[in-house]
Amino acid sequence: MASSIFQSFDKATSAATGAERLAALRMELARRGLDGFIVPRADEHQGEYVPASAERLAWLTSFTGSAGYAVVLADRAAVLVDGRYTLQVRDEVDLAHFTPVAIADTSLEAWIEANLPADAKLGYDPWLHTADQVARFEKAATAAGGTLVAASPNPLDAVWTDLPSPPRAPAAVQPLAFAGEAAEDKIARAREALAKARAAALVISDPHNLAWLFNIRGADVGHTPLMLGYAILPAEGRPTIFVDPAKITDEVAAHLAPLADVAPTDAFVPALEATARRGAAIRIDAATGAVALKQAVEAAGGKADVGADPLTKMKAVKNAAEQEGSRSAHRRDGAAMARFLAWFSREAPSGQLTEIDAAEQLEGFRRETNALMDVSFPTISAAGPNAALPHYRVTRASNRAIEPGIFLVDSGAQYRDGTTDITRTMAVGAVSDEMRDRFTRVLKGHIAIATAVFPKGTSGAQIDALARQALWQAGLDFDHGTGHGIGAYLSVHEGPQRISKLGTVPLEPGMILSNEPGYYKEGAYGIRIENLILVEPRDIPGAERPMLGFETLSFTPIDRALIEPSLLTADEIAWLDRYHAEVLARIGPAVDEETRAWLVEATKPLA
Amino acid sequence: MASSIFQSFDKATSAATGAERLAALRMELARRGLDGFIVPRADEHQGEYVPASAERLAWLTSFTGSAGYAVVLADRAAVLVDGRYTLQVRDEVDLAHFTPVAIADTSLEAWIEANLPADAKLGYDPWLHTADQVARFEKAATAAGGTLVAASPNPLDAVWTDLPSPPRAPAAVQPLAFAGEAAEDKIARAREALAKARAAALVISDPHNLAWLFNIRGADVGHTPLMLGYAILPAEGRPTIFVDPAKITDEVAAHLAPLADVAPTDAFVPALEATARRGAAIRIDAATGAVALKQAVEAAGGKADVGADPLTKMKAVKNAAEQEGSRSAHRRDGAAMARFLAWFSREAPSGQLTEIDAAEQLEGFRRETNALMDVSFPTISAAGPNAALPHYRVTRASNRAIEPGIFLVDSGAQYRDGTTDITRTMAVGAVSDEMRDRFTRVLKGHIAIATAVFPKGTSGAQIDALARQALWQAGLDFDHGTGHGIGAYLSVHEGPQRISKLGTVPLEPGMILSNEPGYYKEGAYGIRIENLILVEPRDIPGAERPMLGFETLSFTPIDRALIEPSLLTADEIAWLDRYHAEVLARIGPAVDEETRAWLVEATKPLA
Repeated sequence: MASSIFQSFDKATSAATGAERLAALRMELARRGLDGFIVPRADEHQGEYVPASAERLAWLTSFTGSAGYAVVLADRAAVLVDGRYTLQVRDEVDLAHFTPVAIADTSLEAWIEANLPADAKLGYDPWLHTADQVARFEKAATAAGGTLVAASPNPLDAVWTDLPSPPRAPAAVQPLAFAGEAAEDKIARAREALAKARAAALVISDPHNLAWLFNIRGADVGHTPLMLGYAILPAEGRPTIFVDPAKITDEVAAHLAPLADVAPTDAFVPALEATARRGAAIRIDAATGAVALKQAVEAAGGKADVGADPLTKMKAVKNAAEQEGSRSAHRRDGAAMARFLAWFSREAPSGQLTEIDAAEQLEGFRRETNALMDVSFPTISAAGPNAALPHYRVTRASNRAIEPGIFLVDSGAQYRDGTTDITRTMAVGAVSDEMRDRFTRVLKGHIAIATAVFPKGTSGAQIDALARQALWQAGLDFDHGTGHGIGAYLSVHEGPQRISKLGTVPLEPGMILSNEPGYYKEGAYGIRIENLILVEPRDIPGAERPMLGFETLSFTPIDRALIEPSLLTADEIAWLDRYHAEVLARIGPAVDEETRAWLVEATKPLA
Repeated sequence: MASSIFQSFDKATSAATGAERLAALRMELARRGLDGFIVPRADEHQGEYVPASAERLAWLTSFTGSAGYAVVLADRAAVLVDGRYTLQVRDEVDLAHFTPVAIADTSLEAWIEANLPADAKLGYDPWLHTADQVARFEKAATAAGGTLVAASPNPLDAVWTDLPSPPRAPAAVQPLAFAGEAAEDKIARAREALAKARAAALVISDPHNLAWLFNIRGADVGHTPLMLGYAILPAEGRPTIFVDPAKITDEVAAHLAPLADVAPTDAFVPALEATARRGAAIRIDAATGAVALKQAVEAAGGKADVGADPLTKMKAVKNAAEQEGSRSAHRRDGAAMARFLAWFSREAPSGQLTEIDAAEQLEGFRRETNALMDVSFPTISAAGPNAALPHYRVTRASNRAIEPGIFLVDSGAQYRDGTTDITRTMAVGAVSDEMRDRFTRVLKGHIAIATAVFPKGTSGAQIDALARQALWQAGLDFDHGTGHGIGAYLSVHEGPQRISKLGTVPLEPGMILSNEPGYYKEGAYGIRIENLILVEPRDIPGAERPMLGFETLSFTPIDRALIEPSLLTADEIAWLDRYHAEVLARIGPAVDEETRAWLVEATKPLA
């Protein structure tokens, strides 16, 4: 089968470039009268996947993680990363020139306060940070006796030879059959929210919201079908989309013509200033809006109303067409997963497979659906101790052979009717009693979420512990949330819905989330069981309140070889058997005979 | 047995006084050039129980609830109350002159914004509101086109004939045997926290913290042994306590002499200003500090650092002596509760008892311990539909006969070694299957909390749902938190620890909380099962993380006549039987023979 198209296993950076690039940046800073500069792993939209032109942190430091900061001062430079990347950063950066700092120990603000010299001017790019972030940097810089200074254009770009061009991939219309609601109707609903917030206009800085509102998709970044750009939605009058005109195909232009004006990106700030000059309150998204937007609005005499973009919440609640699209996408994806797992059960015992082999094979089965637009994130294909890293990403350097023990694969697909994300953990050969104990406790947590019933108004934070109880009873836990939101042919990580102690937003019918408790034993193995779930109303006889529950969307066998049945209650066993019967009923007809034979075995009742 | 000493069942107010007092206040406001005034149910310390001199809301409106606001304008006056009091307020106020408003529908700010005339001046007493509250009022007044104006001295006091004097009850030393830590050592720890917060001084505005820090108690308000007053704790040098000198007995003066200076209350603001004039950052408690403190600090050129009083968190973690004191208090209180329940089981079937009879009898048994300082709150003695009101308070007007069905009693005591709070729900005669179903689901929630095991760092918000799961499965819930914090011979409602979706503070060993899930059927009956629980470390074989759990402190039988055993798991039955065996072992030796005979029956195994 062909190798991966949507995922690279090669290292994109080399630590050897760090010294020279750092020196060049320092010269440029000196030229501009700056004593330091903050380099985030962020684009103008605070995206999770950013275009090559925004990979400034990787270019400067060689650190390729999906989050982090460098702070460059005259005599020192730090690379601050979260717990996922404390090991990786040491492998990637030139330790003679960059000091890795764990954000859990020292926040960016604490590092600035402790290291910025008095009277120093610390620069930042106002297009790459939100207003809230800049307020915190400012406090830290002031506490150190220095000052924070906006530096635009970005001084790093001035020394970045071979700076990639911004992407200009052609956009496409998301058909109404999949979107389920006409853009006109979404715009009308958005205007109601604007009126309620007493805002005269909304700046759409989140490309996910731009895509959702106008029913368009793009291809500007990997793994998420975004068209990078902005829009201004006034309370009255036509909205304007600001985007590189090269992205607007004839089809998209025709689709947008009745909805909005389209203008080039460089018309955005002048248009924002013109709106602000009318003195109006302009809603700027606190989560994705660059502080430059706030500064532009205020400089022009307007009122910057930094708060939640109301589209974020609207987009999170999937309509009937989006829900049905997700079910279709999951049937298709379930067939590819079944083919993969059947193949894996045949091939893994040979001991000849590697993590990359597995990732490539899985992508191949998904491509053979003829509907795959992209993988929804780089596949986590993890053998042995690599599976103990919840965010492991295989490279040619880290690639391990799949040996007896546990193998974990966390992957997903972008189809035009829906986005998927699924994790399965499989036994390879004999597994230990401890592994079966841990797997079964994770499964109990997964079932507790899948079967949870809760009143309308309940948040993900309130039910997160249900996924952990069986682990807690043994003195164990996992260090990530139980579930994140998922888009409809959009981001695999979508807010505001989540199942985590931070998820204080009430769950609403139509929201899609992941259900993915895990267990990780450092240096040994890792376990995670992930399905996507859809919030749905629950009709309970005699109920005194409107109740909600979850419909499970993903249908793929859970490896019975890793289950210790004596740890399960009768209700839990009944859930698993029912789930497996449904996997067979839904996926069986969609796969080849060899896979079906495997599926029949894999979905047999536990008892 | 003698009637209640610590609780009145009489109505203290009459709606008939409202019109005249409202007119007098409006004249005074006009005299001062004010168009309106906010009257909170608050004293200078944002206390739950306030002295008679601070009962301004009750004096003006006749509404006697423990929380609420009146807003008086020239042509209208609203009384804003929360969900507990929407019925009571209609009974108490003169509806011709006061409009009750449910805060759940219309917040105070929303009411101001909708009703304050443009250009109107709305007054508030800066000693009765926190800085955060005033900021919100100001926003609302501005949005209405009016202005918010500090009015001091309080204009209501000028028209309150017979204004009670502020309390000046003698204070007492809390012996080291109960306090467990010398005040010197507490002060040293508080100073470490101040240094960490980079504050030059702490204003202690919370009388609970004042009592805890200096190991003193007072008697200025009902049900909580507080000495109302302030203190300033400088980072260096002696603290000063500001209090009416009449409260300082010779014993207290001798105790305080090595610790702090004592000054009269009117020296407080000048001393605060003197500290502020040094330009220092002064920590003011965001929860209890009046905005007047912030205004005084800023007017004198200091920096008002409004944040958490670090003492609040220190006080919440009980030391070994406080924990042992609570266990002693609970043994004593458990004996009184057993005598009460035995008496109740003998007398209730006659149908001659009333709610007040039960409350008086229970207080009598507690008084006979010869250790009762006060009840920790007015006993909730609730028959039939009155039990469906979670915060019901019996008066002679509401007093019901105890008839067949369900009877609920929620009560507590103040002993010098500890504060108690316990709720039991009892069957009187035959009860319905539905009542047994609901009671058993509440019990399952209570057991889920009592047996919970969770990692260090877990907050009350994360485990709150465990108390609700059995109710949720039947489409039911209850509208209050699962548990609140409890003081050590201090407030029966203490923060920051709580088990509720709002309880985001991590639970720590030594914190005491209530475990009190419930179920309420409006107009019919109510159920609640409440014990106090102590957070303790849990040693689990093979645990990978420090784990915590709860020690149950309260020992009183749970009525088996209300349990449907088929709804309980084997583990839940085992917990109940173990609990009852321990009740008998601890309380049996401390009660008379008749009570012991009842106790033996009441604690028999369920199976």
